[in-house]
Amino acid sequence: MTDAAIAALRTHLAETADLHHAAMLLGWDQQTHMPPRGAQSRGQAGGTLERLAHDRTADPALAGLLDAAAAAGEDAGLVRAVREDHERAARVPGTLVGEMAEVAAEAQGVWEAARAASDFSAFAPLLERHVALCRQYAACFPEVEHPYDALMQRFEPGATTSAVRAAFSELREGLVPLIAAIAAKPDPGDLVGPFPVGDQRTLALEIARTMGYDDDAWRIDEAAHPFMANMGRQDVRITTKEDESALAIGLFGVLHETGHGLYEAGIDARWDRTTVGTGTSLGVHESQSRLWENMVGRSRAQWSRWLPRAKELFPVPLEGLEVDDVLRRINAVRPSLIRVDADEATYCLHVLLRFELEVALFEGELQVADLPAAWNARMQEYLGVDVPSDADGVLQDVHWAHGVFGYFPTYALGTMIAAQLWEAAHVAIPDLETRIADGDLATLREWLREHVHQYGRTRTGDEILQDVTGGGLDPAPLLRYLNDKYGALYDL
Amino acid sequence: MTDAAIAALRTHLAETADLHHAAMLLGWDQQTHMPPRGAQSRGQAGGTLERLAHDRTADPALAGLLDAAAAAGEDAGLVRAVREDHERAARVPGTLVGEMAEVAAEAQGVWEAARAASDFSAFAPLLERHVALCRQYAACFPEVEHPYDALMQRFEPGATTSAVRAAFSELREGLVPLIAAIAAKPDPGDLVGPFPVGDQRTLALEIARTMGYDDDAWRIDEAAHPFMANMGRQDVRITTKEDESALAIGLFGVLHETGHGLYEAGIDARWDRTTVGTGTSLGVHESQSRLWENMVGRSRAQWSRWLPRAKELFPVPLEGLEVDDVLRRINAVRPSLIRVDADEATYCLHVLLRFELEVALFEGELQVADLPAAWNARMQEYLGVDVPSDADGVLQDVHWAHGVFGYFPTYALGTMIAAQLWEAAHVAIPDLETRIADGDLATLREWLREHVHQYGRTRTGDEILQDVTGGGLDPAPLLRYLNDKYGALYDL
Repeated sequence: MTDAAIAALRTHLAETADLHHAAMLLGWDQQTHMPPRGAQSRGQAGGTLERLAHDRTADPALAGLLDAAAAAGEDAGLVRAVREDHERAARVPGTLVGEMAEVAAEAQGVWEAARAASDFSAFAPLLERHVALCRQYAACFPEVEHPYDALMQRFEPGATTSAVRAAFSELREGLVPLIAAIAAKPDPGDLVGPFPVGDQRTLALEIARTMGYDDDAWRIDEAAHPFMANMGRQDVRITTKEDESALAIGLFGVLHETGHGLYEAGIDARWDRTTVGTGTSLGVHESQSRLWENMVGRSRAQWSRWLPRAKELFPVPLEGLEVDDVLRRINAVRPSLIRVDADEATYCLHVLLRFELEVALFEGELQVADLPAAWNARMQEYLGVDVPSDADGVLQDVHWAHGVFGYFPTYALGTMIAAQLWEAAHVAIPDLETRIADGDLATLREWLREHVHQYGRTRTGDEILQDVTGGGLDPAPLLRYLNDKYGALYDL
Repeated sequence: MTDAAIAALRTHLAETADLHHAAMLLGWDQQTHMPPRGAQSRGQAGGTLERLAHDRTADPALAGLLDAAAAAGEDAGLVRAVREDHERAARVPGTLVGEMAEVAAEAQGVWEAARAASDFSAFAPLLERHVALCRQYAACFPEVEHPYDALMQRFEPGATTSAVRAAFSELREGLVPLIAAIAAKPDPGDLVGPFPVGDQRTLALEIARTMGYDDDAWRIDEAAHPFMANMGRQDVRITTKEDESALAIGLFGVLHETGHGLYEAGIDARWDRTTVGTGTSLGVHESQSRLWENMVGRSRAQWSRWLPRAKELFPVPLEGLEVDDVLRRINAVRPSLIRVDADEATYCLHVLLRFELEVALFEGELQVADLPAAWNARMQEYLGVDVPSDADGVLQDVHWAHGVFGYFPTYALGTMIAAQLWEAAHVAIPDLETRIADGDLATLREWLREHVHQYGRTRTGDEILQDVTGGGLDPAPLLRYLNDKYGALYDL
């Protein structure tokens, strides 16, 4: 009887997981292989799958299945995560979900046109509608401390505006002087190509394989905006965009997406074909991509291992460069306009800016029409950058067109969590740097699997941090990491 | 009110069509891109989508939606086709469908092992189970004249064993002496490569584009067993397998799959996102692939247009060859063991043999254990070929492992229908051969679109034939076509 209750829940979850599997493939294909004229039909099919999955999650019968399975001894973490999904889905009216999806579909094209024309006013009316719908959404969760909590928790369960605000303030206070100190130093220059894209792919995949990329269970394709998608833990797909003039774009992009992929590939098989067999939050997911891309990928240990191989592939561009020369160039700090191109030191300030504007919108202290001015003022204040146009400023990211307020903060949360894990990994693996320099990335991966990956969504981000660090979210390790790294590189 | 009834039906069908869209993509991806270790998860997800689509089709509410929509003036062809789907799905118990799928999943691996070992006895027990389940399936349709009708009508609605048997007998009586007459003539030899595969792809796509392959709505990939898959009419995907030593495999394969694709791409937009917006039967579908592959693709008119271009791409292998030389070689008739490698003249006899054995199985006149002997005897009788092993005989095709009895006949039905359409097209377009020789394939395609493609499933194969020829299925045009063609090529 108890086994039957668990099996009944698992059957319900398996079908929902299968719908997610299909929806994920539809999305991957759309961005990698689909002929352009297939877009309308693809949008319809994807919408149907998402709605069917949502309906299953909101299904009143699921609550009973959860109660019975919990009583029968089902894993408490699974029950908690699925119950949260169910309550969230059941609380939000289907009509509101549908309306939000409709505005998002409409806004994508409007945003593209507005950005092309660098005209925020053309985008503002749709943004107003998104804000109004998001207010309705937040109102479905009257128990939260701040309406923005309800929006953010779609992507980062348990995150609160007050905690994020406190962490981000501390981060900003540490980052602004660091960046100012670096700005006073000479620019280290860039790696100068050409770097043939085929050889870039070779190097990136050789490194990715040492991280855990498995040719029998992974694949790589090109995409305009690189991402990772997976259909279960044994079908992991990363995407890349290579540029012959810039080694860093393709190479670090692959390490970033491989980091995301390792998280999904490292989830325990017991969560296969459930809705908890995926990363626990966007922030924790981003911690994995940023840890591998930056903390490993741009480190002295890693380049002392890989520079000789890179010189075999790119003998002319890398001629005469030592590890230190490469490190300074791939870690150059330059305040700039565009978040996705930002370096490790300035990146989080781009995110903080968006978080602060979003919170101000939902507190009613900022109007949509005033966003460009507020954006430009903060870019000047935090990064010392003048924004020449809305296209390079407030219109640069697609996220708001999709109405996903509360999403941006996860990028900086992930960066902070990455540093917390990185610090803890060094304590747990005292010879970690030596291992990386010897080409052993498996020890670090297995430590991450043990402490982060294996749980999927059965542990929250807070539980993972508690287990690893004994505490919660903390910006101090990131500031220590950046100060140490750039102190050495820039001789601060 | 009447519009509302039609809209309600269309909404129901749209969601089912979206599930088919996703299932089709899952299948395409599995055969073209999926990493090998993704297979188990893919099988589960595909099974779930198929079951959800089946449940929607069997949904008792659909009958009421159909009645209301019919009363409101919904297209009669759509109502008929969907009602057939619904009644078929509702008549067959879900448990039987599930059991058939389970045996099929199990039998695939058993068949592969049995074929590798050339040991029919290892496969026979699963085949027995398939036959028993298919008998149960047929028993759900007690009104049919012959139990095999119920099996065949899954793939060819309206087809009856008696009509197919009569047509096939007439076909066999015409083919056997033709093949014997050809066998008395000298063998024309082959085109001898190498044909670099990149240049093969170039030629195939140049021809496919004149047929209607559209780079914005189609794509081509490699697959071990070429097929066409489409997600709506604006996302058509063909697959190919190229062999440097044999131009014909890749080239005619592309024309074949492009023929299938043109059918799907030519369906009227009014059937978008319904379950009738696809080919009306496997036989009619095969008529399109075979017409383009063989009747156009291997014709004098086509090669008088394309041989000069082929010589540009393959100057050495084609040096000194005239159109007649090429035609004789790409149309060589050689009785052989393997259906999928068979030429245009012998192909249907491979199919007839399987049809006769399948019917005999379901009439109880043949036991599973006696299949190899019966197979080998007929191969000798029809094609004069000795079968050296079960692997090259009764075990060569995967179809029986999937339990799809009644499927094989559609290959020969399609070939007959192709010849009927080809003959009618020549009447309707008196200068058709000249047009083809001039590179105009669009006139033929548009004629096919008008008479076949546009209707999707809203016209049956019989209705299409009636409209085009004034009669029904008829093997005479195929026999006339083959006798004319080979009479000239072999100087009979």
